[in-house]
Formats: sequence, structure tokens, C-alpha cells
Amino acid sequence: MTPDFSPEDELALAGRLADAAWSAIRPHFRELSSVDNKGAPGARYDPVTEADRAAERAMRAVIEAERPHHGITGEEYGETASASGWRWLLDPVDGTRAFVAGLPVWTTLIALVDPEDRPVLGVIDQPVLGERYLGWPGGAALETASGRTPLKASACPSLADAVIATTDPYILTDPEHRAWTGLRSTARIARYGLDAYAYARLAGGTLDLVAETGLKPWDVGALIPVVTGAGGLATDWAGNPARLGGQILCTASEALLEDALRLVKPAAS
Amino acid sequence: MTPDFSPEDELALAGRLADAAWSAIRPHFRELSSVDNKGAPGARYDPVTEADRAAERAMRAVIEAERPHHGITGEEYGETASASGWRWLLDPVDGTRAFVAGLPVWTTLIALVDPEDRPVLGVIDQPVLGERYLGWPGGAALETASGRTPLKASACPSLADAVIATTDPYILTDPEHRAWTGLRSTARIARYGLDAYAYARLAGGTLDLVAETGLKPWDVGALIPVVTGAGGLATDWAGNPARLGGQILCTASEALLEDALRLVKPAAS
Repeated sequence: MTPDFSPEDELALAGRLADAAWSAIRPHFRELSSVDNKGAPGARYDPVTEADRAAERAMRAVIEAERPHHGITGEEYGETASASGWRWLLDPVDGTRAFVAGLPVWTTLIALVDPEDRPVLGVIDQPVLGERYLGWPGGAALETASGRTPLKASACPSLADAVIATTDPYILTDPEHRAWTGLRSTARIARYGLDAYAYARLAGGTLDLVAETGLKPWDVGALIPVVTGAGGLATDWAGNPARLGGQILCTASEALLEDALRLVKPAAS
Repeated sequence: MTPDFSPEDELALAGRLADAAWSAIRPHFRELSSVDNKGAPGARYDPVTEADRAAERAMRAVIEAERPHHGITGEEYGETASASGWRWLLDPVDGTRAFVAGLPVWTTLIALVDPEDRPVLGVIDQPVLGERYLGWPGGAALETASGRTPLKASACPSLADAVIATTDPYILTDPEHRAWTGLRSTARIARYGLDAYAYARLAGGTLDLVAETGLKPWDVGALIPVVTGAGGLATDWAGNPARLGGQILCTASEALLEDALRLVKPAAS
């Protein structure tokens, strides 16, 4: 990696990674699940695991060829050391339950993290929809077959006006569940099961708040540049800048962040 | 209506209705919601209501021109009497909360009901994805830009193997919520917030069970032909044939229906 980081070059590479991932995933989406295949347990076909692994191998091959000095942290194949301090975070299929259910709201997540461990570029790719959400320092865009359009988070003025999301209320601890219940019972609309696609739509201005917990680095690295590039805010549940994992709170506006922190702070960990 | 009902002619008409609906809906999807428009309350722009009304008007105009003897029951504009006993059920935007959140899982629902009040044709249309799920007596298909492919529900052998869905666990009565908790805690995966798109994916073989309550005729008329045409089963929560409203239970297989009825029957109403 040259010291002069070029967002456009790295975004172009991230686009090639997303293309490679979809080529590997496509044969497995909406294929019969393992329960319909009565082979020996060792021979069972598990479409989402196959898709996940094949896509991560495809992305790793591109990075190793084009950016040999960059490291890689992937959900499926762990850590490849970095010679430069820069590294890629890869989650080939974020939203495995949506994938299994044949729903087009799983995504491929790609992030570039600088030597200070800050995610500087993010891609949230939903190839069935043909939607690629890009974030970089100071901007964010939705790329489709018709080109790029800027992304802008909403000006949602309060929690009572907000459309909010979390992935699964049943994985929350008791204090977290109380916090979520507070958010849900105040908000206008609550949605579930969206995983990273919720953050994409926050950047797109149609969803106003996402609160989640128990995230891994590859779950969260891509979200932060997309949300903040679109003018949204990303913090942990204590209101500090979002970390690469754990609890995350993203909002479209400062006013909404204040409303939400009042409810989630007691569950911050 | 001639006494010799032609499924292919009526499906072609239903396709024209879905096209007319999407033309009317498209300008409103992912447009700024009312909360970002600080006009007088009377002048507020509510994208989903605008979309719903414009699409129902567009579909009604086609039916009135092409099938003047058919009645219409629509979510937005109520009842138009039928001279023949046949009528169309129209729900221009099913899944208004998904629509507001900018999620591509809302659908347009179109059903043709015979003089004995049986839904004989159904269309579940998701135009952002370009997916049109069709059901007729004895068959079901997914129509996309690449043509029609037959739909076949899964052979899911038990609730423990099943991917299940309900729209909103928070609208259930206490006995219904206990039934849902029984289903959820046994099933492999549970999904929320899909409205009619869940039934489309049941017909598509990637989702195995949907249980809902409080449905209206236009919510449910289109689902039954699509699910049963794909080989799935549609009953009420007591196990009787599905009615045009109320509680509904759809499953991919008999074995799954038996497992599920054991849990939901105590909440049947």
C-alpha cells in the first residue's frame, strides 16, 4: 500500500471483490437446503455455508493478487497478517438466516481498515436487488445498474417519528431487551431480521435507527463508513464512537441519537 | 364472466393489473416520508397512502374496462358490486411498514374469487425484485424477466427443521402469542415483518410455515392459490380450510401441519 490512500482505487477493488463474491454465492441462493437432502451427515449440502466459504475464498484470491501487503480478517477463514497495517474485513454472507429463508436482505460486507484500526471504506452489497451501498471518508452512494446516486440519511427529528430496526430481539440480554422495548414502544415502526441491510437503508434515508449487540469486526466494519458517509451517526450504546464489534447504535440525526441514548445507556457494556 | 373460466386469460389480466399497480406505486417507493415534509397537516405527503390509492384506482380502471361484470373488493376503496358473482380482491401495497422502511418485501396482492367465494387465482407481485408469484387451480409459478418457473413447496419433514414466519408477534393475543412462542422455540429459524412475501417464499420452497392472525379478505385471497398451487397447505388455526380472513396457517407439508396444529389449536378462534 502506498502511503497516499486512494479511496476511488480501493472502492474499485472492493467492487471487484463484491462481484467475485456474488459469482461464488449465486449457485447456492434459493437452492434446496440440507434438510431436503438425505445423504450421510458428512455429505449434507448446506447452501449458506458453501456460499460463505466459496465467496470468501474468491475475495481472498483477489486481495492476495492485487494487494499482497494488505491483511485479511474473514468470518470463515480467520486472519491473514498485514505487512502494511492495512487490512480488509470480509463477511461473505451477512444475514445467514435471511439467506436460508430465500429473502433478498442478506448482504456481502467488505471494509478496508487503516493501520489505526479505523474502517475507512465500506461496501454493503445486495446482489439479488442489484444494490451496492458504498461509504468512504466524507461520502456515500448507492450504486446500481443505472449508476451512482448519493446517499443521505434522513432528518428524522425524534424517536417518535423514527423507523427503527434490530436483527433479533430474542438474542438480547435482559437489560438490552428493556432498552429495545423502550425504543420500540416509542418509535413509529420497528423492523426485524435485516442484519446489515438495515444500515444500508439508514444511509438510504428510509430507516432512521439501528441498534444491535454482539457484533463481530466483519459485521460492523463496512457499516460505519456507509452510515457516516451518508451523514448518519455511529456510536456504541454508551455514546462513544462505534467500535469494531459489540454493541452498536446508528441514527440518522443528532436529535434521534440523544433520544435513543437515554434508553440504551443503562444497557451499555 | 362466461361460465367457462379460463385461468390463463384471467392470469394474463391479473398480470396487467400488477403492471398498472407498479406504474402507480413506483414514484412513491423510497420517497421522503411525511415526517420530512413540514407542511400543514392536511398537506402532508404520505408515500404509502398515495401509492396504495393510486394503484387501486389504476387496477379498478382496468377491471371496469375489461371485466365489467366482475365485482371488486379493495383495501382502499371498498366494494363494487358484481353482476356475475365473480370478484377481484385487491391489496395494492401489502406490507405498508416494509414499504415505509424502504424494504423490498411489500407486495401487491390480486385474487379472483368465484361465485362460491373461493379464491381461484392469486398473484403476489414484488416489482422491485421483479418477482411475480402466480397460483391457479392445480399449479403455481414464479414469473420473472427470464420467464416462468414452476413453484414447489418444500418437503420439510417437521417443525424442528422448519423456517417459519409471522408478521408481527406484538399484535398477537395472549393465547396466540403462546402458540407462536411454541412454534418459534421448536423451529429452526423464525422471520418477521414479511407480510405476504412470506407465503410467496413458502411457495418457492425456502420458507416452510407461516402463521398469522387478523387478516382481511384482500390480505389472504391471493395467498391461498399460490400456496396450494405449489403443493402447500392452507388452513385456519383449527385445521379447517383457510377462510378469507382471520387466522391462517400455511405449511409446506402434511407432517409440518400436524406438528403446528398441535401448538396453534388452543389459540384457534
